[in-house]
Amino acid sequence: MQLLFLGTGGGMPSKERNTSALAMKLLEERGAVWLFDCGEATQHQILRTTLKPRKIEKIFITHMHGDHIFGLPGLLGSRSFLGGSEPLTLYGPKGLEEWVLATLRLSRTHLSYPLEFVEAEDGVVFEDDMFSVEAHLLEHVIPCYGYRIRQKPLPPVLLAEKARELGVPKGPLLGRLKNGEDVTLENGVIIRSAEVTAPGKDGFTVAILGDTRYTEAAVKLARNADVLVHEGTFDQTTADLARDYGHSTVKEAAETARQAGAKALIINHLSARFLPSDHRELLGEAGSVFNPVYIAEDFREFYWNKDRLLPDE
Amino acid sequence: MQLLFLGTGGGMPSKERNTSALAMKLLEERGAVWLFDCGEATQHQILRTTLKPRKIEKIFITHMHGDHIFGLPGLLGSRSFLGGSEPLTLYGPKGLEEWVLATLRLSRTHLSYPLEFVEAEDGVVFEDDMFSVEAHLLEHVIPCYGYRIRQKPLPPVLLAEKARELGVPKGPLLGRLKNGEDVTLENGVIIRSAEVTAPGKDGFTVAILGDTRYTEAAVKLARNADVLVHEGTFDQTTADLARDYGHSTVKEAAETARQAGAKALIINHLSARFLPSDHRELLGEAGSVFNPVYIAEDFREFYWNKDRLLPDE
Repeated sequence: MQLLFLGTGGGMPSKERNTSALAMKLLEERGAVWLFDCGEATQHQILRTTLKPRKIEKIFITHMHGDHIFGLPGLLGSRSFLGGSEPLTLYGPKGLEEWVLATLRLSRTHLSYPLEFVEAEDGVVFEDDMFSVEAHLLEHVIPCYGYRIRQKPLPPVLLAEKARELGVPKGPLLGRLKNGEDVTLENGVIIRSAEVTAPGKDGFTVAILGDTRYTEAAVKLARNADVLVHEGTFDQTTADLARDYGHSTVKEAAETARQAGAKALIINHLSARFLPSDHRELLGEAGSVFNPVYIAEDFREFYWNKDRLLPDE
Repeated sequence: MQLLFLGTGGGMPSKERNTSALAMKLLEERGAVWLFDCGEATQHQILRTTLKPRKIEKIFITHMHGDHIFGLPGLLGSRSFLGGSEPLTLYGPKGLEEWVLATLRLSRTHLSYPLEFVEAEDGVVFEDDMFSVEAHLLEHVIPCYGYRIRQKPLPPVLLAEKARELGVPKGPLLGRLKNGEDVTLENGVIIRSAEVTAPGKDGFTVAILGDTRYTEAAVKLARNADVLVHEGTFDQTTADLARDYGHSTVKEAAETARQAGAKALIINHLSARFLPSDHRELLGEAGSVFNPVYIAEDFREFYWNKDRLLPDE
């Protein structure tokens, strides 16, 4: 798993940061990419990466503000044009389906793949054998969701050497043992699955939040997460703007990470007023409360290495 | 007047060319900018120029395909955010108003300025003392318009020296003579306006067309125009694709310019299959029929110099 930031600015595009989009690359885990938000020109950002639009399996939208959705119609159309045929599912607040369908209809965009919609609400919005995704309403000026993505524990690992020593022959019995079943050998000996398997590793948990003021819901979504991606539109000197416009300061983001017991924090959705030269100051404000903390930048990538997320640098 | 190309590609953005947008800078003529089409990331392209979104007075949309409109909501929002307060008028086909209003409503985008809509139809869609804009339906796979922008003849020039010789005193009589009125001096002498004025210069005429196959309507729109901006999505080797998808080859664009008696041709909306190294070949195909011909490129600018359009290079 890698997190590849495609747009890390707030409100409007700037030369430094595009509007919101974050790719969770699950190519090893499920041969797919999940996208979180899709601001205008997300497909343009993707053009500068190795991401393939047809690999995008799911798009989770946090809220309906333009800087989080205006890139969606273009990306949907290009995914079709570039040969995408696998279904795509969009998750997001009420209004998303109405807008996307109206836009496709009025722009005469015909998709070559099935498009499905799941309206976000508090609780699990997606679950399969490998992953679950839980949504919770945050506290912004319009309904806005955060998502908690949990990779389920990996399947048990077969201890092949041990099984051989106990006399298990090559073949289907090994598969049954790996799947947790006890088996009886031809000689009548019972082999228990637990004897020849080691428990699978824990999966990762990532919380990716939309725009929000400080809220308990964010703490809940990020509980013990391996990484929390939290907006930090403002700093201490502009904390009143954060309150007025339903945003957080970087320090509030850090406070949420601390209370949640998250293992790492990435600050996202930064106001265009902050220049790269301000990052040290911002890291200082957040770092006084929580560590490790990173600042998202367009095209910055983080990768999941065994049991923790590391910046790719 | 300058024509600044912001997006010159067809269908999808590429690294070389963004989706459609063309700015007609009328800063000297009326302190304003007119935009023709607004593909996704047009506001991003504008960020790389000196254009001010609040100066955009009118946006003319040729048709509802996404590569011509998906940048509109973001630009409208940013124009507001950046302090735009003057009215903005959108011209375009049926469906444009419905889509823009639905998008603003569902994305909770509140504009700080009045937004007006004019539904395009064959005929004059805008006229004032200085300009007229005429629309005509072209021939694409969906309704698509071309626009003919005509600057009216400039006002007559007062020949001040001549008026003085004929005994016209300084003051309001001069203004009346300049405005075409004959006047009687205090001594009873009648001075005719024609004696002391020279006719104003002709204005320019520019035809900017949306996506189209060869059509008589395009010839009509470009009749004697100083410049025709015409799509040339394909070349001779892909002429069958042009027919199938409702587009033109560069040679057909040149044929239209020739038949119309236009004074210059700019080929726009090029397929991403063409690289800069193909331009010579494309210019050759068009140039065998019509000259002068130019190929539009993102950020390439042409300026109106006295009585003709020249590339800025």
